[in-house]
Amino acid sequence: MNRMITLTTDFGLRDGYAGEMKGVILGINPDATIIDVSHEIESQNVGQAAFVLGTTSPHFPPGTVHVVVVDPGVGTERKAILLETTSGLFLGPDNGVLSYVMEANPQYRAIALTNSKYWRKPVSLTFHGRDIFAPVAAHRSKGVAPGELGETVTSLATLYICQPEEQGSELVGEVVYIDGFGNLVTNIRESDLPQQHEAVEVEVGGRVIRGLSRSYAEGGELLAIAGSSDRMEIAARNGSAASRLGARIGQKVLLRKLNPDVNHA
Amino acid sequence: MNRMITLTTDFGLRDGYAGEMKGVILGINPDATIIDVSHEIESQNVGQAAFVLGTTSPHFPPGTVHVVVVDPGVGTERKAILLETTSGLFLGPDNGVLSYVMEANPQYRAIALTNSKYWRKPVSLTFHGRDIFAPVAAHRSKGVAPGELGETVTSLATLYICQPEEQGSELVGEVVYIDGFGNLVTNIRESDLPQQHEAVEVEVGGRVIRGLSRSYAEGGELLAIAGSSDRMEIAARNGSAASRLGARIGQKVLLRKLNPDVNHA
Amino acid sequence: MNRMITLTTDFGLRDGYAGEMKGVILGINPDATIIDVSHEIESQNVGQAAFVLGTTSPHFPPGTVHVVVVDPGVGTERKAILLETTSGLFLGPDNGVLSYVMEANPQYRAIALTNSKYWRKPVSLTFHGRDIFAPVAAHRSKGVAPGELGETVTSLATLYICQPEEQGSELVGEVVYIDGFGNLVTNIRESDLPQQHEAVEVEVGGRVIRGLSRSYAEGGELLAIAGSSDRMEIAARNGSAASRLGARIGQKVLLRKLNPDVNHA
Repeated sequence: MNRMITLTTDFGLRDGYAGEMKGVILGINPDATIIDVSHEIESQNVGQAAFVLGTTSPHFPPGTVHVVVVDPGVGTERKAILLETTSGLFLGPDNGVLSYVMEANPQYRAIALTNSKYWRKPVSLTFHGRDIFAPVAAHRSKGVAPGELGETVTSLATLYICQPEEQGSELVGEVVYIDGFGNLVTNIRESDLPQQHEAVEVEVGGRVIRGLSRSYAEGGELLAIAGSSDRMEIAARNGSAASRLGARIGQKVLLRKLNPDVNHA
Repeated sequence: MNRMITLTTDFGLRDGYAGEMKGVILGINPDATIIDVSHEIESQNVGQAAFVLGTTSPHFPPGTVHVVVVDPGVGTERKAILLETTSGLFLGPDNGVLSYVMEANPQYRAIALTNSKYWRKPVSLTFHGRDIFAPVAAHRSKGVAPGELGETVTSLATLYICQPEEQGSELVGEVVYIDGFGNLVTNIRESDLPQQHEAVEVEVGGRVIRGLSRSYAEGGELLAIAGSSDRMEIAARNGSAASRLGARIGQKVLLRKLNPDVNHA
Repeated sequence: MNRMITLTTDFGLRDGYAGEMKGVILGINPDATIIDVSHEIESQNVGQAAFVLGTTSPHFPPGTVHVVVVDPGVGTERKAILLETTSGLFLGPDNGVLSYVMEANPQYRAIALTNSKYWRKPVSLTFHGRDIFAPVAAHRSKGVAPGELGETVTSLATLYICQPEEQGSELVGEVVYIDGFGNLVTNIRESDLPQQHEAVEVEVGGRVIRGLSRSYAEGGELLAIAGSSDRMEIAARNGSAASRLGARIGQKVLLRKLNPDVNHA
């Protein structure tokens, strides 16, 4: 039995909220292994949490229970969801925070967590992370079947996940995430990149980058590289591409395949 | 045997201090489960640590060992304390940091940690978290009886914990904690609130809030709600009440019970 | 078998990078105990990581696997190294980040991690922490012999570690680390300090401190004390010595042994 439970929240690390969730989990399953993915998601930034969960969770063993609590609608009619996939189980509010997971696992089954037998009582108005998601995750990690936790639902909230678009010889993508180093992660996938790394030109924020680099240490001041989440990234050697470019989420990034026979000088 | 040990400190997360404590604990009890409550308490802010520990620890199983190290007096005559309660064991300096725990568990037994047999040697001048509290917690989690760790003490340092006061039809409370979302946690308890949520008016920083909300998403720009620590909170929809109000710890909050027969328009 | 694995990185805590490493480790060895030393090392600050690892790791049991990933040269020709010492095993890039460990354990054996059998596939260009160091650490924690992981190497990159210098009656040291409290940790070791704590004078940033303190709470506004890493520290009572002195890494600190028979008034 996989007894791993990961946590992704916007609680920050000063308050005791993440600790409360862990106490509740360990009270139900003292053998759970709890792994913090992040508690530093920006307050109420559902899209950021969706991306972090979507890129991190595939590196955990199948059957891991992933809990995500970025939940500005806590206490309203929004559902609490369990998503069952072949790569793991995902618990979170029905507000789009599971969008990247659903995109990567289209064969999911979704359950609304309605069986209060597995909740902490009383349920507070403001903290379902502690009172619903944490205890349900702990019971699941002890073997309670998903079907026991609530009823199947078919329609879920989703975020719009922008895909790159071909326009002539260009692929028009955009920045979908900016990491702590200031690297710009784009929605252009590694499979979109040509085998010949020099046969490409990247344009972002008015700057043109020639060729793809093989490491952060190679290339010019700004460089483009296939990053660790299988997406093309824009990086700066020994610095932050985000500050150098004043970049933001949603900024356009153009990938231009070059004809090696033509002189682009 | 409960083998859980929680840590609450002002060490921050860049330095290796929390790591050193964990190394010492795991060297003594490799089977300990260590849970970080917080290492982001403000430097030397004993009151903040006391509140975080007091509200988080009840969510852990009985018998959990809670270690708190916010310890500006380390190396002076201040005692190192173990507090034995039915809800857990608490280790920390005798500087008031256990005040909320003592208020919630008035039937505690207190022991001064004087038996150096259970310390790391040599004891440094500046880091009793690593050299006294961590090893004692680890030995305790392996079953060493509290009475073996030192001698009973009866007089402990305590912080003044302000209680709300009735003045006519008003309850005069104050802000006791501001969380990372900017929610203002008050000392007005859920049990002080009327059953009828509309029959109340809250005043803070010159602003009047009509009625209590049932979720962060309902209510006006500012709202009052029964929070997850059983205390009334002031929150801002999709924002920080603290910045909107320029609020601070100790700021007055008035709860006014309304006569539903009178027109307050 | 010691199944502890520590992590020291500059990944920060918002992104999922540390989580990805943990997922990979637990996928290989579900019984590993993973301890975060720090993920808040400044971006690409190899010297800071080297110091934190060097001072924290001795507090873990022998046989612990310590992984350090501050790796601006990832993807270049720089080697991935395992250092075998009597106090633990250390995995990191060959960029000097293991310098303090090597200084403390001169009898090490070093192995270049060249056996791709123990790597995650495919290995990304930008994240060997997840694709090489994490899986190798996990396999090692399950008992794979170091010699199986690659080939012995003899020449390693090292940082220059400045030692204090005697100049007449003065010992000239410098600030080597500034912690989160603003304490200035120097390269003057506890063994350099006289037994008589009053028989000494410390000069830093144009300020003179008379005598060594026995606690942070004693002494004047600024004080000098034997700190928890066996190094002399400069601290400020209830404040940050770093901000009071505008101090920086590399700043000179003079230790002057006084002749107790002479009047220094």
